[in-house]
Amino acid sequence: MAKPDKKRGTSQKRECILEAALRAFARNGFYNTRVSDIASEAGVADGTIYLYFKNKDDLLISLFEDQMEWIIDRLRHELAAVDGGVLNQLRSFIHLHFRLAVERPDLAEFITVELRQSAKFVKEYENPKFADYLKMLYSLIERGQEEGVLRTDLDRRLVTRAIFGALDEVLLQLALLPDAPDDVSDEAYQIAEMIIDGLRVRSSESLSPTG
Amino acid sequence: MAKPDKKRGTSQKRECILEAALRAFARNGFYNTRVSDIASEAGVADGTIYLYFKNKDDLLISLFEDQMEWIIDRLRHELAAVDGGVLNQLRSFIHLHFRLAVERPDLAEFITVELRQSAKFVKEYENPKFADYLKMLYSLIERGQEEGVLRTDLDRRLVTRAIFGALDEVLLQLALLPDAPDDVSDEAYQIAEMIIDGLRVRSSESLSPTG
Repeated sequence: MAKPDKKRGTSQKRECILEAALRAFARNGFYNTRVSDIASEAGVADGTIYLYFKNKDDLLISLFEDQMEWIIDRLRHELAAVDGGVLNQLRSFIHLHFRLAVERPDLAEFITVELRQSAKFVKEYENPKFADYLKMLYSLIERGQEEGVLRTDLDRRLVTRAIFGALDEVLLQLALLPDAPDDVSDEAYQIAEMIIDGLRVRSSESLSPTG
Repeated sequence: MAKPDKKRGTSQKRECILEAALRAFARNGFYNTRVSDIASEAGVADGTIYLYFKNKDDLLISLFEDQMEWIIDRLRHELAAVDGGVLNQLRSFIHLHFRLAVERPDLAEFITVELRQSAKFVKEYENPKFADYLKMLYSLIERGQEEGVLRTDLDRRLVTRAIFGALDEVLLQLALLPDAPDDVSDEAYQIAEMIIDGLRVRSSESLSPTG
């Protein structure tokens, strides 16, 4: 979504700086990248960066928010098209997470490696977009519990975090491969199986929850 | 294990510097901590640090190796005392991981937050102690598969990573709480349930694996 208070040209320059930052961070790491490196990558003067961003931490956070918005839009769009109920949506969620390593290796590395290197980011930033991402996962688990397909004896918030951690760690491994993988469907299938079987109501119990 | 080529006094000073570094990193973060901060925390001259460590990255890696050795020894010791087979050992592994947040909150924060802030650490360091830690988890899964209690259709290496990711993310949340938690047994119980049910041979299949 474009910021309503910004003109189109301004918004394009901002995007261009963010894309340059993503490439620079992926290549040299967050801490080894200077604002001037991003400026030269973007083909703008150093001072131009500061018209849009307060500092490198602010750039990192803005980049994250923009990219998460892209990821969330894509998830919403693709999950809405999934047939077969909440378990299939959960499977799709996991497949889409891992497919970042195939489709957007720079973004996969940024999310799993570089982002963690800003202490400000990990410890201080409230991170509303990441909260939205977690909320999508949480809502799937909540719906599965309400529909009686997922067990209700596990805390949803805790389970959401654990699943995110599992997905993030496997994506990190995929992102650190020397070459971006062509296909991650086997990894996604296996992790989805493990997670869903861990959450599913056992077959002997599957008729018990009452609506 | 003490280094054989070092005298006892030398080894004690090294330990003292590492403990000071752990406190300083936990308080101010890896990137905001200078070598001189660690020196003053340890009560030694700046130059003394460089007798033992090449630089701050080297200090971080040494600290990690020492602490992981402590964690691994403790795991080995406690797992050896567990009755009831591999599933109970897996449960104990998970409980012990989370109990770091209660017993060693500084170490829990170091492992889950500060460590990730060294790009060198995440991307370049081979990390033999962490490999040992993963190998313990891997061996439990391998044994469970061989004994016919865990499903064999999942890749052990992949599953090991996913479980580590889940545990690490939940520990991160526990480590970021304003006060160290008194008790994490409920979190550990729930995550262990979810993971073990995700890996367990279904009851209808539990007699099928042949030895």
